[in-house]
Amino acid sequence: MNITVWNEYRHEKENPVVTDIYPEGIHHVIAGFLEEAGHNVKTATLDEEHHGLTEEVLANTDVLIWWGHKAHDEVEEDIAEAVKQRVLEGMGLVVLHSAHFSKVFRKLMGTTCDLKWREADDRERMWVVDPAHPITEGIGQYLEIEKEEMYGEHFDIPTPEELIFISWFEGGEVFRSGATFKRGRGKIFYFRPGHETYPTYYNKEVQQVIQNGVKWAQNEGTPKHVYGNAQPIENISEK
Amino acid sequence: MNITVWNEYRHEKENPVVTDIYPEGIHHVIAGFLEEAGHNVKTATLDEEHHGLTEEVLANTDVLIWWGHKAHDEVEEDIAEAVKQRVLEGMGLVVLHSAHFSKVFRKLMGTTCDLKWREADDRERMWVVDPAHPITEGIGQYLEIEKEEMYGEHFDIPTPEELIFISWFEGGEVFRSGATFKRGRGKIFYFRPGHETYPTYYNKEVQQVIQNGVKWAQNEGTPKHVYGNAQPIENISEK
Amino acid sequence: MNITVWNEYRHEKENPVVTDIYPEGIHHVIAGFLEEAGHNVKTATLDEEHHGLTEEVLANTDVLIWWGHKAHDEVEEDIAEAVKQRVLEGMGLVVLHSAHFSKVFRKLMGTTCDLKWREADDRERMWVVDPAHPITEGIGQYLEIEKEEMYGEHFDIPTPEELIFISWFEGGEVFRSGATFKRGRGKIFYFRPGHETYPTYYNKEVQQVIQNGVKWAQNEGTPKHVYGNAQPIENISEK
Amino acid sequence: MNITVWNEYRHEKENPVVTDIYPEGIHHVIAGFLEEAGHNVKTATLDEEHHGLTEEVLANTDVLIWWGHKAHDEVEEDIAEAVKQRVLEGMGLVVLHSAHFSKVFRKLMGTTCDLKWREADDRERMWVVDPAHPITEGIGQYLEIEKEEMYGEHFDIPTPEELIFISWFEGGEVFRSGATFKRGRGKIFYFRPGHETYPTYYNKEVQQVIQNGVKWAQNEGTPKHVYGNAQPIENISEK
Repeated sequence: MNITVWNEYRHEKENPVVTDIYPEGIHHVIAGFLEEAGHNVKTATLDEEHHGLTEEVLANTDVLIWWGHKAHDEVEEDIAEAVKQRVLEGMGLVVLHSAHFSKVFRKLMGTTCDLKWREADDRERMWVVDPAHPITEGIGQYLEIEKEEMYGEHFDIPTPEELIFISWFEGGEVFRSGATFKRGRGKIFYFRPGHETYPTYYNKEVQQVIQNGVKWAQNEGTPKHVYGNAQPIENISEK
Repeated sequence: MNITVWNEYRHEKENPVVTDIYPEGIHHVIAGFLEEAGHNVKTATLDEEHHGLTEEVLANTDVLIWWGHKAHDEVEEDIAEAVKQRVLEGMGLVVLHSAHFSKVFRKLMGTTCDLKWREADDRERMWVVDPAHPITEGIGQYLEIEKEEMYGEHFDIPTPEELIFISWFEGGEVFRSGATFKRGRGKIFYFRPGHETYPTYYNKEVQQVIQNGVKWAQNEGTPKHVYGNAQPIENISEK
Repeated sequence: MNITVWNEYRHEKENPVVTDIYPEGIHHVIAGFLEEAGHNVKTATLDEEHHGLTEEVLANTDVLIWWGHKAHDEVEEDIAEAVKQRVLEGMGLVVLHSAHFSKVFRKLMGTTCDLKWREADDRERMWVVDPAHPITEGIGQYLEIEKEEMYGEHFDIPTPEELIFISWFEGGEVFRSGATFKRGRGKIFYFRPGHETYPTYYNKEVQQVIQNGVKWAQNEGTPKHVYGNAQPIENISEK
Repeated sequence: MNITVWNEYRHEKENPVVTDIYPEGIHHVIAGFLEEAGHNVKTATLDEEHHGLTEEVLANTDVLIWWGHKAHDEVEEDIAEAVKQRVLEGMGLVVLHSAHFSKVFRKLMGTTCDLKWREADDRERMWVVDPAHPITEGIGQYLEIEKEEMYGEHFDIPTPEELIFISWFEGGEVFRSGATFKRGRGKIFYFRPGHETYPTYYNKEVQQVIQNGVKWAQNEGTPKHVYGNAQPIENISEK
């Protein structure tokens, strides 16, 4: 499987706290464990030409992972649109954490994708509510993260097609933390954790879920529909 | 309930076949039966200033009905965006027939909303597949239309939250003809029939479904969420 | 609307703590606020003949509310089956708290309906996650109950058609506390709160949700399908 | 993967028309193409001891395929119940054609599972409506069967979690022909075609869908939840 990990890659260069945790960027860590799992992984970042997402890169990507936060607006409109089109044509998409506000995700959802948030070292406990779903394979009853940014409901998304994880936060909130959507021939997995000031992407269970998500999102050859004016297949009666 | 019926209102002025059927416009016929049902109904059309959809009109509309076909592109971007925002804030939306390709619907769905079509006087039979849904009240096992434009799958929409009608077409196709979606606090009902060259909106059962849809789509006071940075409700432990 | 409130009515007669809170039974309190809201309400309890649920009573009930806990097994098989059949024919059903384990609910769900639980005075905060749903009308961002029994995930139910509330519990769990299902022509609303040792059904917001649920669950005349051997509607070609 | 193909195996022994098509039984044909695809396949039939479904057989089955028609009532209650329990624990289930009325499927659905039917050599055209779903891999825009028994809506099932195929029938009906459900840790795929008097299970595309369905239904190790009384994970405040 060909995976591209896209990262905004700004916090890691500008904030020493983040540099300490992810010296080569969040994308580097994510690409690392996916390569170890045997995938063919590339990375792309905001400040590369075309944000590293040329037509050719997109055409050769089976599943795209997206992390962004403070520079969503700097993603060029036509590139966001091209990514959306590739999803509709069948590329899988894994949307991480603050990428809920990315252009690509908002275009695909049609809603504000807004939510409540707080940086206060909340403990997060993500409960599995869909234990038949392959994205939960290898996970226990819940997945706990000692300290994370809080995201709270209401999360303004369309009703997910599958709701997989619900998070409990120490400060009193809940959140739909793992959710899937289909758009066109593409499958989308939103997964909440991963604030840049915490070492969340080193967590083995978080890595397991992302691997499961990538595997689930891959499209191995579903039908391509033809649209537009169509001749009748059956005879139509004279009236 | 305050209803606004929006119509492109071009075919009726340009095509004598359509003028014969809807001399005062499709919106006039729809507004008529909704008024008879006791609602407070206004109309708005493309060629009015602001397409008849000022901020004030939108603010005072509980449910908006939308019919458009050949001039989707002439709907101004900021007005389409304002309508979308009002839906997210709670205004109901009933999307009719070729409005599947309207800017408003496509923005809310996040997909191409493409489909197959044919103008060949197909017979259409819409089967009720959700007989517990209030939008089916007063309808029998199916609703039949002698001649209509064919719309065929695949209909490139997100999975509907509720699938209410499935159409059978004489020429060999099927279509998800009645479907609901929620976006933000707004409820959306897509209803397929109503090509301009057929007298479909005079059909009593079609009228019944539109009335049911309007009633279902109305929001009578659901919660308004607050988004953004939030203080903890519970004490957070020292770590 | 004709509502029947069914209650097991055992704890109230046997446990002084419960007697103090609900001297005339939980059903009496629920019937009271629904009558005040203008409905025609009857009650029925386990120890009445036929558990108070004769064919006639069921035939004249638009929406049935069910509370049970320690005596689910004493509900006669054929009465549970008759209630299920009436739901499939269009009677609404509101299932409260420990009735998740009732025969009627389990028959309709097809799963174990099991869950985690604890009686430890947990604080419960039910967050609205579907702010377009009429069952949330009049409620704020969340509904808080100072002390309640905890119910925790995994709740072994089929994926709800609509997920309306998610509860946060002080002890670290989450729960899908408000959820809807359709079965046949019947609409079902499961609503979590209401352990017998707490005065939960006096809570005005809990009452509001139950009223909303009853209103939502009522069937005003949806199609009755015919099943079995069917003649073709269209001509079938000779082959 | 360990697959067990269960077949009633009566028509094939009693009706010469069926014997001609499936001389060694429908199960034999299905087992054949699944073995060719590399799976480890066993068969079991109604008239074997325990219907061929001992505890050991069920424990060693990853995905069970079920075909039944005229003898649903002869399936022993406790065996149907044991199969249901295994599904809730994670065994996949593929339910074919007239097995919509099997005890196992009805117990899992909670509804009557009734439908319209006709044996009149209708042409069936199954349209793909979920082109992102792995069960559609390798299929075109639709799958056509020259002659089949008609099944028509309303199909009295709970709303499927995923609707994959909708059938068009020559005589004027539609049907939700491919649909998925989850119950407990088990995944269920209902697939309509396969009346015993037609050679449907020799159709390469039908075989492809069944193979896709089996692959999709397999559970590779999702979480096993603990139910019942639970200690708090977090400290609960004194009140």
